[in-house]
Amino acid sequence: MNTNRAPLERFYSVIPAGGIGSRLWPLSRASAPKFLHDLTGSGQTLLQDTVDRLEPISGKNRILIVTGAAHKSAVQEQCPDLTSENLVLEPSPKDSTAAIALAAAILVRREPDVIIGSFAADHVIGSQEAFIKNVTEAVEVAATGKIVTIGIAPTEPSVGFGYIKTGEKIDGGSNAREVDKFVEKPSIERARKYVESGKYLWNAGMFIAPAKLLLEVLAKSEPALHEQVQKLADAWGTDAEQNIFDSIWPGLKKIAIDYSVAEPAAEQGLVAVVPAKFSWHDVGDFAAIAELQGGGQRNHLAVLGNVTVLSDKSNGILVSETGRLVALIGLEDVIVVDTPDALLVTTKEHAQRVKNLVDSLKSTGHSDVL
Amino acid sequence: MNTNRAPLERFYSVIPAGGIGSRLWPLSRASAPKFLHDLTGSGQTLLQDTVDRLEPISGKNRILIVTGAAHKSAVQEQCPDLTSENLVLEPSPKDSTAAIALAAAILVRREPDVIIGSFAADHVIGSQEAFIKNVTEAVEVAATGKIVTIGIAPTEPSVGFGYIKTGEKIDGGSNAREVDKFVEKPSIERARKYVESGKYLWNAGMFIAPAKLLLEVLAKSEPALHEQVQKLADAWGTDAEQNIFDSIWPGLKKIAIDYSVAEPAAEQGLVAVVPAKFSWHDVGDFAAIAELQGGGQRNHLAVLGNVTVLSDKSNGILVSETGRLVALIGLEDVIVVDTPDALLVTTKEHAQRVKNLVDSLKSTGHSDVL
Repeated sequence: MNTNRAPLERFYSVIPAGGIGSRLWPLSRASAPKFLHDLTGSGQTLLQDTVDRLEPISGKNRILIVTGAAHKSAVQEQCPDLTSENLVLEPSPKDSTAAIALAAAILVRREPDVIIGSFAADHVIGSQEAFIKNVTEAVEVAATGKIVTIGIAPTEPSVGFGYIKTGEKIDGGSNAREVDKFVEKPSIERARKYVESGKYLWNAGMFIAPAKLLLEVLAKSEPALHEQVQKLADAWGTDAEQNIFDSIWPGLKKIAIDYSVAEPAAEQGLVAVVPAKFSWHDVGDFAAIAELQGGGQRNHLAVLGNVTVLSDKSNGILVSETGRLVALIGLEDVIVVDTPDALLVTTKEHAQRVKNLVDSLKSTGHSDVL
Repeated sequence: MNTNRAPLERFYSVIPAGGIGSRLWPLSRASAPKFLHDLTGSGQTLLQDTVDRLEPISGKNRILIVTGAAHKSAVQEQCPDLTSENLVLEPSPKDSTAAIALAAAILVRREPDVIIGSFAADHVIGSQEAFIKNVTEAVEVAATGKIVTIGIAPTEPSVGFGYIKTGEKIDGGSNAREVDKFVEKPSIERARKYVESGKYLWNAGMFIAPAKLLLEVLAKSEPALHEQVQKLADAWGTDAEQNIFDSIWPGLKKIAIDYSVAEPAAEQGLVAVVPAKFSWHDVGDFAAIAELQGGGQRNHLAVLGNVTVLSDKSNGILVSETGRLVALIGLEDVIVVDTPDALLVTTKEHAQRVKNLVDSLKSTGHSDVL
């Protein structure tokens, strides 16, 4: 790729703001998904935190959010500096390949040498300083013609994440390593082996790559999808946009970027990984949020929301959106989520089962609260 | 006492509708105490159930409810047949002696030979047929010049109730026995001995007595209080009522009828007890309500209120006044009470601690939700 620009000057942040986060119902809803909430008590939503985290790297104007059309006004309200140039609206959710590849295709038309970094809108990251350092490193490696992911050192043998098998260190004094392969969510036995080996990192879905390279890989692995995405990008911002989106979007294949790009690229030796030096949480369920907030430790009840709580020998997490007084007595590892039209009570042990509950709400005709 | 009337013709039901029921917060409040709620799922409040239970015995017009002035409209709404002749309003709570003695003093002025039966407004009673039979029997014994209580055969060594030590059977073919003495809430060891002995019954606060006799006992044990009550009864329904109540009521001694009348009368050999043939619950806390509803058994969640519940492997009790959807996952013996301005979550094990919580709400300035 011919370019005179330094790697960081070519960098553009892409934030796919998609998944609803069913395991965070009733807080997270189709109408107000996870990324629109403050799940850390920071006073900002996860999306705002994500934008703030990327701004020092790519600059305020080089951030592209890809989100559902339904969330346009909420996103604009939370990120008032965004212009329509910085926002791609999806007519319906089509998984991460559509979102990221469309962003890549739109940006490569503006800047053929652009390097994009894609970061989920709903993760929580510890040290900002370490994050900037790792992303900068990843951008530099990406500029050598690689798709670079940032891998997280596992803190436990989680079966909820995919893993990255690391290979040799790459040349050039960086901490980056070759990626042998991506592996899907493992069994607990396999996860333990991965962690013990010291060779595996969690796949946190962070991908930094020249947009052109990413699209080339996609063109080989999913040619039809690639072609559709190119047509959408051609139409984006033109008078034809509405018509083209209406006709093409519903037929897009739903596929995660891990399968369409990361795995095929790894097979071709095109992927590198930078081991993260920052802490990372996907805050996938209320148990994760509770842990992040120290809920459950000793007698500590984590509280999100402006609420008066009387906690008598209780620990866990309380999330409140109603302002009602909440009294908890003698509850261990409890999860209470108090919203205007729905109340959830469970325990950290059962936090994952919230997803099943949402499924059963769907099937029993209670989609008004989803 | 000279009278030509048959005992049952002399009978008048008195319903002291007082106690707030702190252990049932946040359902039961100062503004909406326990007796104004449907705690059994019968479709009626405890007060309405109590009135319906007594009507076949005393007749619709021979029921006197003694309640707080603040509950006048709620009581009239729930019991639309009541006239002002059937309602005594207390300016402030002064415990059971003031309530029952004032009722006795008012009624004895209408009918010198009246036999009153006093029954709490917030208890739950099983067989109506057995209740009628037992009360009828108690009225007949009372007509012989006794203060008669109806005692409950203990189902467990409860430390939450006072006990009645029974003596010899009284003459006359009735099931009634002399009462040796009343004993206060015992230690668990003592409660076990009481239950094993077979001689003790629970004191459920039901007293059936000629009003004149009850007042005579009070005159000896608490002469000042007796005199004040007589003045209040003289003024009741007259132009002087307001003034007399204003001046006398605040100074009334707060004392339970058990101490002022039942115990002194027992010492004088004036008390008999009819062993109840009906089941009885004081529904003193949410654990008791849950048990009454079968909550906690197997996978059963008892539900009070018009609410959509999704219960996944949960048991206990849910009380809802908000109509919100409630989802409970993996909770054992849970108590969830969902009201418009306050939410309580605890377990049956800690049901009694709700009272402490109410105390701490008082002391921390949250009396708006009490």
